[in-house]
Amino acid sequence: MDSVSCHLVRRFPSIKEGDDLAAMIEDRFALRDGDVVCIASTVVSKSEGRFKRLEGYSPSIRAQKIAEELERDPRFIQAVLDESEDVLIERPFLLVATRFGHIGVNAGIDQSNVGQGRILLLPEDPGTSADRIRGGLEKDCAVIVTDTCGRPFRCGVAGVAIGWSGIAPLRDWRGKRDLEGRELEITLEAIVDEIAGMANFLMGEGEDGNPVVVVRGLEYPKSGGRIFRPRELDVIRERLQEKDRRS
Amino acid sequence: MDSVSCHLVRRFPSIKEGDDLAAMIEDRFALRDGDVVCIASTVVSKSEGRFKRLEGYSPSIRAQKIAEELERDPRFIQAVLDESEDVLIERPFLLVATRFGHIGVNAGIDQSNVGQGRILLLPEDPGTSADRIRGGLEKDCAVIVTDTCGRPFRCGVAGVAIGWSGIAPLRDWRGKRDLEGRELEITLEAIVDEIAGMANFLMGEGEDGNPVVVVRGLEYPKSGGRIFRPRELDVIRERLQEKDRRS
Repeated sequence: MDSVSCHLVRRFPSIKEGDDLAAMIEDRFALRDGDVVCIASTVVSKSEGRFKRLEGYSPSIRAQKIAEELERDPRFIQAVLDESEDVLIERPFLLVATRFGHIGVNAGIDQSNVGQGRILLLPEDPGTSADRIRGGLEKDCAVIVTDTCGRPFRCGVAGVAIGWSGIAPLRDWRGKRDLEGRELEITLEAIVDEIAGMANFLMGEGEDGNPVVVVRGLEYPKSGGRIFRPRELDVIRERLQEKDRRS
Repeated sequence: MDSVSCHLVRRFPSIKEGDDLAAMIEDRFALRDGDVVCIASTVVSKSEGRFKRLEGYSPSIRAQKIAEELERDPRFIQAVLDESEDVLIERPFLLVATRFGHIGVNAGIDQSNVGQGRILLLPEDPGTSADRIRGGLEKDCAVIVTDTCGRPFRCGVAGVAIGWSGIAPLRDWRGKRDLEGRELEITLEAIVDEIAGMANFLMGEGEDGNPVVVVRGLEYPKSGGRIFRPRELDVIRERLQEKDRRS
């Protein structure tokens, strides 16, 4: 590939439960085989009816305790805990692993763009969401569901992939050699995150946001690999939790 | 911006100390004002003569101890420590903060593509490198120096920015509102990392790697902000080091 282009899909409407995202994208953009369609998790969640009312949550003692520390609504904290399979950090922010393996603050639950007293959960399984959207497209494209996340060590948020279909999350350089014939130290490259980052830049945030970006001209592997680091291979997660258990 | 294009600069030659990267890029690609020129840190380092011979390092007791744990050459570990202002994790990998603020394994020191017994350090100050390259361009472009880094919680490496010039590292959404008039929870977006990720995808690794990518059509803020999280605002760094001090 010599050049790649990234296109905003304009005039994407507000999404409600049951909307057919695949059809809505193809109505507005002439997809071609091989395109990578990046979709913000918020619109995927909305199409899947992942709105909840805060009043539907009864905070546990633990949720109340965390909420007090963080000065948040305890029902919101309960919603985060309900979406989590593991808590990495409780304060000064609530960093959890979601049930589908993604690690993020507040389990990625969004209070923007959804109205007072309501929250929007991430898709229950963004990989399955991506499969379904991809299956609904007439063209043979890859689909990436993106989210915006903070990162350790670096300021600011950046787009990452939380679900994908028709593309391998990792590009495998194992066995490849450098110019001098030495085996490369870099072995696996998180290409879905690299694509999601640029897509997120184009999408923007807030009222001017555009939730769908199409990337054209990429060469990418179609399948294999995982991106959420397994707990037993995550040194930093282990250290954070070790520390927590001691304190 | 409705669409953005990313272009590989082909036939970029091997770089030696003193090479004028700005001229070499403009000789091979017709830049336009506003383009974002992404350059792999390896070629920046080579142009700055950041090669070192391992035999030039005398490992300290500490370097010898770490090297034994990690089964690495103690002179290599000494080189990493020399480039670091702080060690976050000693094993099972050596995670450090470089003198210019970037946190990465082995201080980003590369043993690929540089020959036996030699290593390639990151640029001493990639921001200054970016300023110098940008200053050498005839067109008014932004410059991003990229590196490939692992991340906590997620598998695989991804491209990030370690230096930039003519572009703000963060896009500021503070005060912006969502469709329903609520203030956005997301406030600062690490746009240089989002651009660097896609550029890194196009660059590839190893013998087929192309170290320069030009991104055209982006709208971006020109100045302000920082991307390396200050130590006192980095909860995860603090917890890792707290734990370390106790053990």
